[in-house]
Amino acid sequence: MKVGFIGLGQMGRGMAANLIAAGHEVSLYNRSADKAKGLEAPLAPSPAAAAARAEAAFTMLADDAAVEAMTFGPQGLLASLPRGAVHISASTISVALAERLTAAHEDAGQHFVSAPVFGRPDAAAAAKLFIVAAGAAPALEICAPLFAAIGQRTFPMGDDPARANLVKLSGNFLIASVIESLGEAMALVAKGGVDPHAYLEMLTSTLFSAPVYKTYGGLLADKRFTPAGFAAPLGQKDVRLVLAAGETLQVPMPLASLLRDRFLALLAQGGAEMDWSAIGSLAARDSGQ
Amino acid sequence: MKVGFIGLGQMGRGMAANLIAAGHEVSLYNRSADKAKGLEAPLAPSPAAAAARAEAAFTMLADDAAVEAMTFGPQGLLASLPRGAVHISASTISVALAERLTAAHEDAGQHFVSAPVFGRPDAAAAAKLFIVAAGAAPALEICAPLFAAIGQRTFPMGDDPARANLVKLSGNFLIASVIESLGEAMALVAKGGVDPHAYLEMLTSTLFSAPVYKTYGGLLADKRFTPAGFAAPLGQKDVRLVLAAGETLQVPMPLASLLRDRFLALLAQGGAEMDWSAIGSLAARDSGQ
Amino acid sequence: MKVGFIGLGQMGRGMAANLIAAGHEVSLYNRSADKAKGLEAPLAPSPAAAAARAEAAFTMLADDAAVEAMTFGPQGLLASLPRGAVHISASTISVALAERLTAAHEDAGQHFVSAPVFGRPDAAAAAKLFIVAAGAAPALEICAPLFAAIGQRTFPMGDDPARANLVKLSGNFLIASVIESLGEAMALVAKGGVDPHAYLEMLTSTLFSAPVYKTYGGLLADKRFTPAGFAAPLGQKDVRLVLAAGETLQVPMPLASLLRDRFLALLAQGGAEMDWSAIGSLAARDSGQ
Amino acid sequence: MKVGFIGLGQMGRGMAANLIAAGHEVSLYNRSADKAKGLEAPLAPSPAAAAARAEAAFTMLADDAAVEAMTFGPQGLLASLPRGAVHISASTISVALAERLTAAHEDAGQHFVSAPVFGRPDAAAAAKLFIVAAGAAPALEICAPLFAAIGQRTFPMGDDPARANLVKLSGNFLIASVIESLGEAMALVAKGGVDPHAYLEMLTSTLFSAPVYKTYGGLLADKRFTPAGFAAPLGQKDVRLVLAAGETLQVPMPLASLLRDRFLALLAQGGAEMDWSAIGSLAARDSGQ
Repeated sequence: MKVGFIGLGQMGRGMAANLIAAGHEVSLYNRSADKAKGLEAPLAPSPAAAAARAEAAFTMLADDAAVEAMTFGPQGLLASLPRGAVHISASTISVALAERLTAAHEDAGQHFVSAPVFGRPDAAAAAKLFIVAAGAAPALEICAPLFAAIGQRTFPMGDDPARANLVKLSGNFLIASVIESLGEAMALVAKGGVDPHAYLEMLTSTLFSAPVYKTYGGLLADKRFTPAGFAAPLGQKDVRLVLAAGETLQVPMPLASLLRDRFLALLAQGGAEMDWSAIGSLAARDSGQ
Repeated sequence: MKVGFIGLGQMGRGMAANLIAAGHEVSLYNRSADKAKGLEAPLAPSPAAAAARAEAAFTMLADDAAVEAMTFGPQGLLASLPRGAVHISASTISVALAERLTAAHEDAGQHFVSAPVFGRPDAAAAAKLFIVAAGAAPALEICAPLFAAIGQRTFPMGDDPARANLVKLSGNFLIASVIESLGEAMALVAKGGVDPHAYLEMLTSTLFSAPVYKTYGGLLADKRFTPAGFAAPLGQKDVRLVLAAGETLQVPMPLASLLRDRFLALLAQGGAEMDWSAIGSLAARDSGQ
Repeated sequence: MKVGFIGLGQMGRGMAANLIAAGHEVSLYNRSADKAKGLEAPLAPSPAAAAARAEAAFTMLADDAAVEAMTFGPQGLLASLPRGAVHISASTISVALAERLTAAHEDAGQHFVSAPVFGRPDAAAAAKLFIVAAGAAPALEICAPLFAAIGQRTFPMGDDPARANLVKLSGNFLIASVIESLGEAMALVAKGGVDPHAYLEMLTSTLFSAPVYKTYGGLLADKRFTPAGFAAPLGQKDVRLVLAAGETLQVPMPLASLLRDRFLALLAQGGAEMDWSAIGSLAARDSGQ
Repeated sequence: MKVGFIGLGQMGRGMAANLIAAGHEVSLYNRSADKAKGLEAPLAPSPAAAAARAEAAFTMLADDAAVEAMTFGPQGLLASLPRGAVHISASTISVALAERLTAAHEDAGQHFVSAPVFGRPDAAAAAKLFIVAAGAAPALEICAPLFAAIGQRTFPMGDDPARANLVKLSGNFLIASVIESLGEAMALVAKGGVDPHAYLEMLTSTLFSAPVYKTYGGLLADKRFTPAGFAAPLGQKDVRLVLAAGETLQVPMPLASLLRDRFLALLAQGGAEMDWSAIGSLAARDSGQ
């Protein structure tokens, strides 16, 4: 399939490489050209050029602003993508932007599919991502072989693209909730004299065997917050987007509000370069440890 | 070994049966005698009688008050357990009571070990409990074959018995945190039009594969809160004990405070007979669903 | 002085009338012309026309969007206000918009002053408003006689206009905090059998003699939430703007987060037509009263 | 009237002096005898002796434990107060203890009245206290001249003594809420560049003219937390008692929970000697100021 791929960061490179390896005819674009080095596909001079003859074009970008620029800008997807082609947004963007993109592409005779992914760069490189996808059924059908090339499983969430974004954001909220709960529990038992590593070993050998407990519990027990796997400002952004979605839908989320305040405290105290799991260290700090 | 076993509720019966099956010489006691039916061991007329010749005596009781009555009462363990014998408290009791028991048994020339367990009645029956144990090393050594008879793994937490209680309470806090976070996330996505079962399938197939997410997510998706596996008032009690421990240790726990308020709201609105997972339905209710 | 006045709602009408009564040469503008009836001043056909020869032009509008439209629109103040004249924003707008307006007017050789007011429509009619004002000293000097005509006292907050907005928003946060605290206290004592009116009489005769306790306590004791003096969606908007300011400045505000969730719960449960004090009824509802 | 007075701390001394000055025949008791110096009344050797011939006996003591000791102890009020006499508890005690005292005195043919007071030592010395009183009507009638001697106004709260305690505790909750709200607001505006003193002057000249805003706002603006007027551990105790009452009555109080966590954080970080208003400094600290 002819595919445009815009955004060659840590995640995007792996995804693009797997699309190429699966035999698709990929046209790449990235703001700084050097990121495309080593990928066996041509680099287009603009997003428009990458998308001009594509049946589907991915965006895998840092935030709402970047996706807006690549879509609505003068060299953007909206003006260049052929009628009937699909814009696949794989980044974590706001529900509100997903709704705008859905309407805009529909007006232009194109399709829009939200397909945010769960997984870190190593999973992207290994084609082991989990994909949460929503959009019109025919558009999802077009995407199916592409998703097969980059992920281990696709979870369809219906025909409204914004729902996939809501699901993805809620997933990041759940991870941050794990961090906060572990942070409070470990502050408590550590101040009571329990060894954090023995504690964590117990938790993850019993009820809390999920990967998130192992990963984040380990970072907390070791107080190892740099280098950041997922930086605190990104975590804060996602909590903001969750709360914004909750505001639009009128769903109060007191735990998300607590997370919001934790992220602000972390950033205010110099944590901008830390991993987002560092919010889990604030309970210990509040307790004088 | 000669073992006293006091408290033959849903959990205690299974544990006692496994001790008997392992060849220990068990003497049983329960306030209402009929709970001992079917167990192949003699029923003593008082806790004192059950403990009088024991090397170790378990208590597996509902709450602090029951453990106090069976220990400090006129027919209690303190007055009857031989010097050098061990009182093993397997229930979820407060840190403060564990400290009192430690001191009282030491004064009486006896040992005290805290050994709360993770697992539900079926795990107790199958000798698959996880045991969190703390106490003086020689006392733990005496207990080792008994723990082997009732559980699949023991996690030692040092020589101060109260630490095991702190760990157990913090574990229940973590479970309740999972319920609250799922409750908020599911309220959000459901109000946004996502099917809760599809959502849960996605979560538990990816990052949140731990049993607690499957168990409690399923109850929430089905809104199935009766009959209670673990009743809301018990959940409230455990959160109160966690907060009490946090107060003594001066560890602020805002998420535990949120859980406290959720439990009170649930009980105030008629949830006393419901499973504790029903606190996870309050986010949806607050959002008008 | 030649004054433009844009926005003749409940507050604006009283303010404009007092400027006219003080002898200023006022030119009015309102989207729907009938709101100007009874005011002894000419109605201009556009904001631009109202501002074209003014030394100062007030905007007193519902929200950020309205102020943006009247300022940046084709017939807006920015394009029409003479060089050296002052745009006085008296509405409760965001800190971010105040910053944009400051920069835009400076670029156009004009002044911008933020002068949000405390007081309800009757205070506006009686020239009894409290004015919180910030802006460049020469601009504030121009405004002084105008403020004297509409208010009982002006509180200067320095030369950065956005500070006045921050102060005003924080004031609304403090009022909403009073409502929440009263709501919780009254839920507690009422469920304990205390008469709410006797309780309120005690509070407001002793430590809590400020007008806000009398006003909002009375509404809560009477459960009198309609008609709205200040509607719940406006309260929610102000809490959102406070939180947004806190986010920009990296100041965690857990009590503001609680208020946010209260407003969402109120709106989700059909409170959009109620007075914002109705958030104070949610504690009672959560407690089953 | 013959009156026993037990507890001559900062508050009690002033109250006792005013009872003496009003012509009542007062018998004093205090654990350390030197506190009675300068008071024109005899010092009894035990609480029993102070109460033995009294028509009414006050307790004005630090906490529940002290009131329990003076009432239920071998030399306590319960065993010594004549039938028909009144025990007046003027301290801030728990609702639960008030209920126990009500039942115990009734069993002994005595009366119990809860009459906690609002006011600081200078108000006690000046007979300017506000008294919140509840108890059986005949008992309150006996107390009336005594209340007139120590306070400026009495607020009756019905015939159940515990209600007065609930009201008093809720009042302290409201004060702590003011501190928290001011702490967040001042952290916000100060980080935004506003002068805290100018800000406070504005607040207390307009909507927030109540004494609590002036008193606590001033302490916060000056960061003047020592010496403590009312020490942080006492504030924590009162919030604990409010939450305990809310738990018994099943009233969730999220703002009280926030205050609880603030007090724990303050104490954990070395604030035990500070005034309770220091919890209002934590928002600024969290924001990196």
